[in-house]
Amino acid sequence: MNQKLQAFLNEHKLDALLLIGDSLCDPDLYYLSHFLSGDRFALLGKEKIHLLVSSMERGRAHKESSADEVASTDDYGIMERLQSLGKPDVAYVEALSEFLRDRGARRLAVPFRTPAGIYRLLSSQFDLTIMDSPVSGWRSSKSRQEIEAIWSVQRACQSAMGVALRLLSRSRPRGDMIYWGDRPLTSEKVREVIEVHLLKKGCDALETIVAGGEEAVDPHARGSGPLPANAPIVVDIFPRSKSTRYFGDMTRTVVRGEASLEVREIYQAVLAAQGAGLKALCAGVSGREVHARVCQAFAEHGFPERKGKGFIHSTGHGVGLSVHERPSLGEAGEILEANMVVTVEPGLYYPGVGGIRLEDLAVVTEKGCQNLTDFSKHLVL
Amino acid sequence: MNQKLQAFLNEHKLDALLLIGDSLCDPDLYYLSHFLSGDRFALLGKEKIHLLVSSMERGRAHKESSADEVASTDDYGIMERLQSLGKPDVAYVEALSEFLRDRGARRLAVPFRTPAGIYRLLSSQFDLTIMDSPVSGWRSSKSRQEIEAIWSVQRACQSAMGVALRLLSRSRPRGDMIYWGDRPLTSEKVREVIEVHLLKKGCDALETIVAGGEEAVDPHARGSGPLPANAPIVVDIFPRSKSTRYFGDMTRTVVRGEASLEVREIYQAVLAAQGAGLKALCAGVSGREVHARVCQAFAEHGFPERKGKGFIHSTGHGVGLSVHERPSLGEAGEILEANMVVTVEPGLYYPGVGGIRLEDLAVVTEKGCQNLTDFSKHLVL
Repeated sequence: MNQKLQAFLNEHKLDALLLIGDSLCDPDLYYLSHFLSGDRFALLGKEKIHLLVSSMERGRAHKESSADEVASTDDYGIMERLQSLGKPDVAYVEALSEFLRDRGARRLAVPFRTPAGIYRLLSSQFDLTIMDSPVSGWRSSKSRQEIEAIWSVQRACQSAMGVALRLLSRSRPRGDMIYWGDRPLTSEKVREVIEVHLLKKGCDALETIVAGGEEAVDPHARGSGPLPANAPIVVDIFPRSKSTRYFGDMTRTVVRGEASLEVREIYQAVLAAQGAGLKALCAGVSGREVHARVCQAFAEHGFPERKGKGFIHSTGHGVGLSVHERPSLGEAGEILEANMVVTVEPGLYYPGVGGIRLEDLAVVTEKGCQNLTDFSKHLVL
Repeated sequence: MNQKLQAFLNEHKLDALLLIGDSLCDPDLYYLSHFLSGDRFALLGKEKIHLLVSSMERGRAHKESSADEVASTDDYGIMERLQSLGKPDVAYVEALSEFLRDRGARRLAVPFRTPAGIYRLLSSQFDLTIMDSPVSGWRSSKSRQEIEAIWSVQRACQSAMGVALRLLSRSRPRGDMIYWGDRPLTSEKVREVIEVHLLKKGCDALETIVAGGEEAVDPHARGSGPLPANAPIVVDIFPRSKSTRYFGDMTRTVVRGEASLEVREIYQAVLAAQGAGLKALCAGVSGREVHARVCQAFAEHGFPERKGKGFIHSTGHGVGLSVHERPSLGEAGEILEANMVVTVEPGLYYPGVGGIRLEDLAVVTEKGCQNLTDFSKHLVL
């Protein structure tokens, strides 16, 4: 990591990289510090990694973070500054400025998402260059340890999918709904079963999708209320390990009851398109090309639509400390490198019919890919 | 809400307020839009609330958000711009600029945390004023509906606390650890029981604290490994409702086994200080004054230390869509208003002894406060 940072700083003739935010919401910060905090802190990357945290967080940062040095805003007189300046943000930036000067940082790269207020206050004293964060690029290719962490979450994800599909398979179709005992089985109930299972495996899953029928025509709809019989139900699970903070991601689509011929054809097309995508994955190939192969497979199966209905999203995305990160498998997809971890998740969405999506998670290799997902694909339960 | 926005814009002679971010991480955005998304979107507040979302999110934004209008970046040619400009961020800001011009917004307030890259690109075309977000001020005083939502989460929180304390009370002290059956009872196990219980009540709880002995001397330590016998164990639960997105927050400290005289004295001091804080709460009183009363109570009980050990944090904070929000009950605490919801959570931390904290959640009223927490306080289980 430090080599990449040095190369970046040398290339741009900069003293340091400055990240400011909270590492719950900014995975770059977590990646460089291994310090998880919902409170704002600053990370200065030079030869070493330096943190500036609140006094409350100092002890934990010392213990938990991988940074070389931890300083606290108390060391930089935050309370006195607050009393004399009144404004908390101004007091903070004054303390931060002294912290930066003490470490010889003058020419600084700051990422695009740096808080504008801090950027403006700092820019009178420092030479700041706003850049796309280089860290998200460094994050895209994973170490062996990171791949192990993702694989481990993916296994928990599969286990939860198994529990969910068993629940669905044991429900009874009656009329246009499915029942568990006397009651309609709902998206909420299936989601609860998934999330409790994941929690017991040390994972959080905040936005699990269990959406059936017309709801699933919107790929981002989470689903609510009774689930339909004889219509596709999309189950998309993307848990995060509480300990490693890495995500897994997978989707299956199933029908409880009878699937129409149209739904079966759509399912076969999605399965074929996913196969084409996985087959196209390889170091040196662009995400754009993988996406093009998937689009081509859809067209060949008679589902060429891409606007408003049909295949309305891209083929996939990187997965790591974020559930959506680089690289993209879409129109603007960059060249893939070995050890990138990506989803391949084509889907078709037709109002009046429903949504069908299949998603696996795979590691890009020099010769192709290794699928981290080992879970069957069957439409009808 | 719209009245507050209008008054704010008139006072500062501005056309509109512009917020940019994702509403998972920015509660102001959620507050004004009721649209939950992990993807970046823009909110323009004028006479009406306008959203600019990605095409993928458009359907869901239409359905779920409370905004008056939803536009998508597709309406503003994001794909064509991306193809001609190359840079996604520049393409986005171009689309955003046209969206803003179309709605007659020229003089804009942007909050302190606006992404610096967007701020810089927009500032060549618009008259931007960086401000503390007025929304966090609007959020601090709650509506009846918001108080109901918080109260409901707080009841789930109490229920989970009950489950956790029953588990602890049924454990057996042996040597310096507590056991469940043949195995040491761990922080992780108690946390799992709490979080599964909360999940079944429709709440997430990401960072529950179950910390005993020396670990609890750091108020932010989450706790790990076997829990101690005969020493204080801090249980701090702050769940969020999945449906309303509001938080609850409460803390109890217990000893399983024997509590030393010193621990009992500390516990009594914390109890008294909390009583003093709750008694001081009232509309028109400042958070600073409430905090001073708590510090005074600690001093009167013989625990005056405030640096490094003793009462090393502030008295409390607002709770709502964030677990930490305005107002502050601390050194810089502002004047309290009716319907603010705040924690009162004094604690004492002594290396070699442990940490003891008690936390209730209360609504500030014209004549005092209404405690939303109805849960006993006993040191020894």
